[in-house]
Amino acid sequence: MTAVHRVHNFAPGPAVMPLPVLEEIQRDLLALPGVGMSILEVSHRSKTFESILERAEADIRTLANMPAHYRVLFLQGGPSLQFSMVPMNLLTEGSTADYIDTGSFADKAIKEARNLGTVNVAASTKGDHYSRLPSQSELELTRGAAYVHMTSNNTIEGTEYKQLPDVGDAPLVSDTTSNMFSRPIDVSRHGLIYAGAQKNMGPAGVTVVIIREDLLQRSQKSLPTMLNYAVQAENRSLYNTPPTFAVYALGLVMKWLLAHGGLDAMAKVNERKASRLYAEIDRTGFYRGTAHKENRSRMNVTFRLASEDLEKLFIREATAAGLDGLEGHRSVGGMRASIYNAFPEDGVDALVAFMRDFERKQG
Amino acid sequence: MTAVHRVHNFAPGPAVMPLPVLEEIQRDLLALPGVGMSILEVSHRSKTFESILERAEADIRTLANMPAHYRVLFLQGGPSLQFSMVPMNLLTEGSTADYIDTGSFADKAIKEARNLGTVNVAASTKGDHYSRLPSQSELELTRGAAYVHMTSNNTIEGTEYKQLPDVGDAPLVSDTTSNMFSRPIDVSRHGLIYAGAQKNMGPAGVTVVIIREDLLQRSQKSLPTMLNYAVQAENRSLYNTPPTFAVYALGLVMKWLLAHGGLDAMAKVNERKASRLYAEIDRTGFYRGTAHKENRSRMNVTFRLASEDLEKLFIREATAAGLDGLEGHRSVGGMRASIYNAFPEDGVDALVAFMRDFERKQG
Repeated sequence: MTAVHRVHNFAPGPAVMPLPVLEEIQRDLLALPGVGMSILEVSHRSKTFESILERAEADIRTLANMPAHYRVLFLQGGPSLQFSMVPMNLLTEGSTADYIDTGSFADKAIKEARNLGTVNVAASTKGDHYSRLPSQSELELTRGAAYVHMTSNNTIEGTEYKQLPDVGDAPLVSDTTSNMFSRPIDVSRHGLIYAGAQKNMGPAGVTVVIIREDLLQRSQKSLPTMLNYAVQAENRSLYNTPPTFAVYALGLVMKWLLAHGGLDAMAKVNERKASRLYAEIDRTGFYRGTAHKENRSRMNVTFRLASEDLEKLFIREATAAGLDGLEGHRSVGGMRASIYNAFPEDGVDALVAFMRDFERKQG
Repeated sequence: MTAVHRVHNFAPGPAVMPLPVLEEIQRDLLALPGVGMSILEVSHRSKTFESILERAEADIRTLANMPAHYRVLFLQGGPSLQFSMVPMNLLTEGSTADYIDTGSFADKAIKEARNLGTVNVAASTKGDHYSRLPSQSELELTRGAAYVHMTSNNTIEGTEYKQLPDVGDAPLVSDTTSNMFSRPIDVSRHGLIYAGAQKNMGPAGVTVVIIREDLLQRSQKSLPTMLNYAVQAENRSLYNTPPTFAVYALGLVMKWLLAHGGLDAMAKVNERKASRLYAEIDRTGFYRGTAHKENRSRMNVTFRLASEDLEKLFIREATAAGLDGLEGHRSVGGMRASIYNAFPEDGVDALVAFMRDFERKQG
């Protein structure tokens, strides 16, 4: 198991996983210790899986320093299904939901909500190609809104909230998919948090939803059962067969986070990695960051070159040098280096060295 | 990797997987050959994953000898979400869906459909504790029904259709979760087939939907995007991040099925395994099968003993002997031996030997 060749994976998700987690999964793949069967074969009704699920939840609570009146759900369908589940459950008849439009995924969330109820776009930076986040004073919030929806990190556009917006008494609903657990999170300021696992928390196939208990009362009995937060909470995410392997792998990542000092420690490393990369981008003007400096993401570092031809050359040569997944999203072009929790610091160093070398040859 | 202790796993799903599949997953867990990253880290937009997805679909088509005008979708949420997605997409306004009520899961499907439209229960064997399937003459079908829903194998009750019911011109929708690909399947007689992977096809976390192309036209644009079959088909199951690992593992199981002679060969083995077990159940009357003989399932063999105390003892001693997961579903009690495709013949032999020994001591 030692001679395995691994590239530096800058993909935006599914993304690089902690190597010790992969090694533990590999070691136990034929049989979990003392269980005699693979995690892929374990019944979701078994004590083995129940304790995996409980441990994952407990570690999430510890990492997030979570108040007791929040519930943790492990669901399927990704954030894209949450775009519908949030309004289905929380946007009660006669009320309005506020959405802050800061990127392609926020825009998708708005479209799904509009199919289900009344939506007010409290602010949008679409006119600026989503290169920045709206300031507090730009927000036009609805009095008594059912909730306010935000996207804490915009994966495609490379922007990230440093502080939560002030939304008054309305429950704040945050899509934290691409920066979840990359820094401390104040759960108590949220009504609901959702995150697909496949960036900072584990493999694709499971979505974590954290919901303030009182909001469960809004879920109508007439909803499709699988889409009803109250039913999922009541059944502790075991209404039907959950994605057992994904929950197990996510649990191992949570254990890894705790072993590495939790979210404070993670924030320091992430800050260091992103700063190093942005410093290189800003060094000479050869590279150009696409996001406003004050809104730059520590997770998805987006940048461009003088021409698309040069960008293609950059990506081709980087890939050949073992720096994989640096293409920007197909909708915006350019380059994007996704450097989530599990992305190693030496990978950032390798990219910086490559960028400097590329500039020397092409600049 | 040789000294791993593995028990015989009779769990109803997630269930035993083919050992060569587990070994291949284990071998490549740190890095897929030539790719330099784990399947857990591979982008769903990469050529690597696209070819995994395409290969899985191609193998499903080969195994099922599938006509070209059917589409294959890889979705999340399990059969329980299909209970809602089927009526959301196919039960158009003003029409009626017929449901054949043959077990707990059929009953759940009916409840979800009733929340969304008009349902006619064409037949129900609830009065017989679902111990049998309704005959053709018992079916009271609606003329011009939107579809007829059936459950091809009832996991909890241990019954299984040997032949498809005749439903005239209405599209037949079949929940094949617990006997999918355990024998040849005539796709052309179905409008839609759905199956959670976690019994015969792979690990939990992915659901295969096979849909006749013309039915995609029924999906309304106003549906939540993730729940819209037409959108999922148009995007080749890549509208959002699919459960990449589960699709990969399912693909390996399909490859294993093909290498073992496909569905004809699988049917022979499954018939042999089930016959051996039922022969032991019927041998003296000490054990009692719960399903009517002509409707007995080859996948989930349900049986009882004279008292619940004796059943508890049976399960306890079996577990101690390395025969795991034999408890019947909590709603019905008794014993259930789930012997899907990947369940080895020597495991059936071990159970038969244990049963004989138990009878000798307790009978």
